[in-house]
Amino acid sequence: MKIDVSSVKALTFDVFGTVVDWRTSLIEEGMQFGKSKGIKVDWAKFADAWRGGYAPAMDRVRRGELPWMKIDALHRMILDQSLNEFNLVGLSEAEKDHLNRVWHRLKPWPDAISGLERLRKRFIVSTLSNGNISLLVNMAKNAGLPWDCILSAELVKHYKPDQEVYQMAAELLDLQPDQIMMVAAHNGDLKAAKSVGFKTAFVRRPLEFGPSADKADLMPDPSVDVSADDFNDLADKLGV
Amino acid sequence: MKIDVSSVKALTFDVFGTVVDWRTSLIEEGMQFGKSKGIKVDWAKFADAWRGGYAPAMDRVRRGELPWMKIDALHRMILDQSLNEFNLVGLSEAEKDHLNRVWHRLKPWPDAISGLERLRKRFIVSTLSNGNISLLVNMAKNAGLPWDCILSAELVKHYKPDQEVYQMAAELLDLQPDQIMMVAAHNGDLKAAKSVGFKTAFVRRPLEFGPSADKADLMPDPSVDVSADDFNDLADKLGV
Repeated sequence: MKIDVSSVKALTFDVFGTVVDWRTSLIEEGMQFGKSKGIKVDWAKFADAWRGGYAPAMDRVRRGELPWMKIDALHRMILDQSLNEFNLVGLSEAEKDHLNRVWHRLKPWPDAISGLERLRKRFIVSTLSNGNISLLVNMAKNAGLPWDCILSAELVKHYKPDQEVYQMAAELLDLQPDQIMMVAAHNGDLKAAKSVGFKTAFVRRPLEFGPSADKADLMPDPSVDVSADDFNDLADKLGV
Repeated sequence: MKIDVSSVKALTFDVFGTVVDWRTSLIEEGMQFGKSKGIKVDWAKFADAWRGGYAPAMDRVRRGELPWMKIDALHRMILDQSLNEFNLVGLSEAEKDHLNRVWHRLKPWPDAISGLERLRKRFIVSTLSNGNISLLVNMAKNAGLPWDCILSAELVKHYKPDQEVYQMAAELLDLQPDQIMMVAAHNGDLKAAKSVGFKTAFVRRPLEFGPSADKADLMPDPSVDVSADDFNDLADKLGV
């Protein structure tokens, strides 16, 4: 099935979970870190706790209980809580800062780079992530992600799925919303993008939350324009 | 001479004149356009008039006589004036829009891409231009400029050399000002960057304003940290 994307000029990508495999990356770095320190932790549980604190922390910012802050700062706040919960005490500031920046070093899903290279021949490919600009730039350099543009929720001090984030992308790319397709593994992100007029592409990432996780978000909402198994499948379906 | 840049993490580049040769690009596209329309114009003078209207137009925005607008809109305003001055009448809206977007299609100086490829192995390389984001993204795709990040004065609705532009870059790259080096062919840009704490690199572009132009801006101000003949020379001097 190929859909008509003749009017689409840009693809904006969710990053955590859609482009990069945060969970495996966190577990691998955690295990290395634990080994070097001689400490035992269930790093899968640690990764899930760290990521699990993310949406509630953004909600606290939305409710005004916390000031707006970069995701780096939110990640650090949750990291400090998780270190306490897992009884990981006595880390130096440098160690905690390095651990926190694991989000700058996340590894792409195997299809991400080759798929993006194909897609960018036809479209502008940009991030549209809650990750802050410096996180996304460092990640791209580290992983070799070939973005044309780094756009972040940071630029409007709102987090997705607030509409301001998608509207900012349309304004800065100087495109009408329906000339942009949001690509994400999460229906909530896509529904919000659609509500401001974007086209939407769902990409299945069955292992995002680990092999035994709830599979609720693996079925695209019926409203999406296209659904794909990975970025190369998306390129096929967009006729690239 | 190599200078100590061990603390520098990112290079931010002025674009018009420093990375791309706006004058030759404008003249070449103008000549093609004139030929296709069967009209005779001194395109060198036209290019100089178009570019000449740029600083005064930004000053009108600074004084509040005009609202803030993207450079695309400023360029279009000056283009319309220049078309009148050169008695170029009867162009369709599509033709004027296409002509205005010549700024999205400017060609890099011969050393720009190879120099950037070298520099980005060691540093984050980002635009820091008055050009709007979409202009810079389209230019990069068209010319093959390998940016890690597209930063624009548009993000703070101030034009360089207003300090807000350089401060925005430091904030978004999450770096201290002295961890960033501004690269430009224009002393005014570098002096403003230095005033907020950036390191500075002057790159000579003797042909920016044409072979017979005043050479006043070809001598770096004594305050710059490094001066180079082109981007490969800059890479040599930064020890890349």
